[in-house]
Amino acid sequence: MSTPTIVTAAMLAIGDELLSGRTKDKNIGHLADVLLMSGIDLKEVRIVADEEEAIIEAVNALRARYDYVFTSGGIGPTHDDITADSISAAFGVPCIHDPDAMSLLGDMYARRGMEFTEARMRMARMPQGSRHIANPVSTAPGFVIGNVYVMAGVPQVFQAMLDAVMPTLHTGARMLSRAVSCPYGEGDIGSPLAAIQKAHPETSIGSYPRFDGQKFSTEIVIRARDEAAIAPAFAAVERMIDDIRRAKEAAGELPRG
Amino acid sequence: MSTPTIVTAAMLAIGDELLSGRTKDKNIGHLADVLLMSGIDLKEVRIVADEEEAIIEAVNALRARYDYVFTSGGIGPTHDDITADSISAAFGVPCIHDPDAMSLLGDMYARRGMEFTEARMRMARMPQGSRHIANPVSTAPGFVIGNVYVMAGVPQVFQAMLDAVMPTLHTGARMLSRAVSCPYGEGDIGSPLAAIQKAHPETSIGSYPRFDGQKFSTEIVIRARDEAAIAPAFAAVERMIDDIRRAKEAAGELPRG
Repeated sequence: MSTPTIVTAAMLAIGDELLSGRTKDKNIGHLADVLLMSGIDLKEVRIVADEEEAIIEAVNALRARYDYVFTSGGIGPTHDDITADSISAAFGVPCIHDPDAMSLLGDMYARRGMEFTEARMRMARMPQGSRHIANPVSTAPGFVIGNVYVMAGVPQVFQAMLDAVMPTLHTGARMLSRAVSCPYGEGDIGSPLAAIQKAHPETSIGSYPRFDGQKFSTEIVIRARDEAAIAPAFAAVERMIDDIRRAKEAAGELPRG
Repeated sequence: MSTPTIVTAAMLAIGDELLSGRTKDKNIGHLADVLLMSGIDLKEVRIVADEEEAIIEAVNALRARYDYVFTSGGIGPTHDDITADSISAAFGVPCIHDPDAMSLLGDMYARRGMEFTEARMRMARMPQGSRHIANPVSTAPGFVIGNVYVMAGVPQVFQAMLDAVMPTLHTGARMLSRAVSCPYGEGDIGSPLAAIQKAHPETSIGSYPRFDGQKFSTEIVIRARDEAAIAPAFAAVERMIDDIRRAKEAAGELPRG
């Protein structure tokens, strides 16, 4: 069996509003879903404020460590949109009014009979040498520099930009998974599940507790890049659940709501 | 005017399931809301996988930088719950079966006629020298070591633990805010809003674009720790919106949707 290719990624969500609770982020979950389907492992997420130093430090830490970094937020036309400047500083290159982006935006505002103000021109700013990420929703492009993909924070625009980006990325072997809904809590399954994990080292078995207000249950997820590795671990988990049920029945524990 | 006290915090959400998209995190938004109300500034959030090295690095970076660090996840009884070990390693102290937590859990399982298995004993493990965080939902305590507050990932338990923690924290001057719903996009408001920000440096003015599928609008938020600073900036933003409306009417732009 050849070693599967692993491709890793991180996300950096930028914006005071995410840290003040005013906006509940929707882009992280969306990116996680899309990357999972594509065989790219999302390994870390950071959320930072609209502060240049915080953005620079985070993007430099993440771009050194992962194959791809995706950012959201801070590329609009207002004074608090400082992502283009901060990413430029992180790469040590000038932040310029990109000529192609200026034409794109200038033409669009001309067609709409609107003034191409200094604020609107801010949306054409990006690190020198960047490539564009198309924005079919509202024209102003995102940009790529090195392994960093800089996208909008508005979810509809983020999603459209990500759709444009995904076909251009290297992807790895997809992480496959199979989930088992287990009616017992982690206290019941902890020891036998650890034994199953030990017996199936080619899989990664996670257990995620749920609480319905009355009792705990668990979702058990078996992951592997090789389909053939999942089936035997899955069967072992199903046997474990049966064994726990029988033991509880034998002990006179009745099933509860 | 005396300098307001600033208290800062970070959150570290731990769990593969948050990065695979399987679970959409609910704890970050909740913590953000609670801290905002309490006068603690949430400055950074990280999400990392259930990997010891990633947890150690993140918690050490964050605890050095902020007054408080709150973690969620990975303190259950299964093999993938490695938060207690990782936090112990981050602090360079042994991870022990805490005697008080052992009594608490042992008594609870005895009352319920359930076996206190090795897996369940894992929930009593914490860095030597930790204090407990009470868990009124399901008994197994969280813990505090240094400025790091380690709590459960299940939202009901996280919230109950946070309720227990909040009255024990130092808090600062609350960041106050006032929001204006602006019917115009950021391209329209960018230049005048930058001027307002410049004229009111004691406030922090954020602008958050919305897209309804047809057109952009903006939520403008004025923040300051001093109530008196907000009113004049708020009035200036309202004047700006009026000015834009008049200019658009004069230019014959009709209001849309």
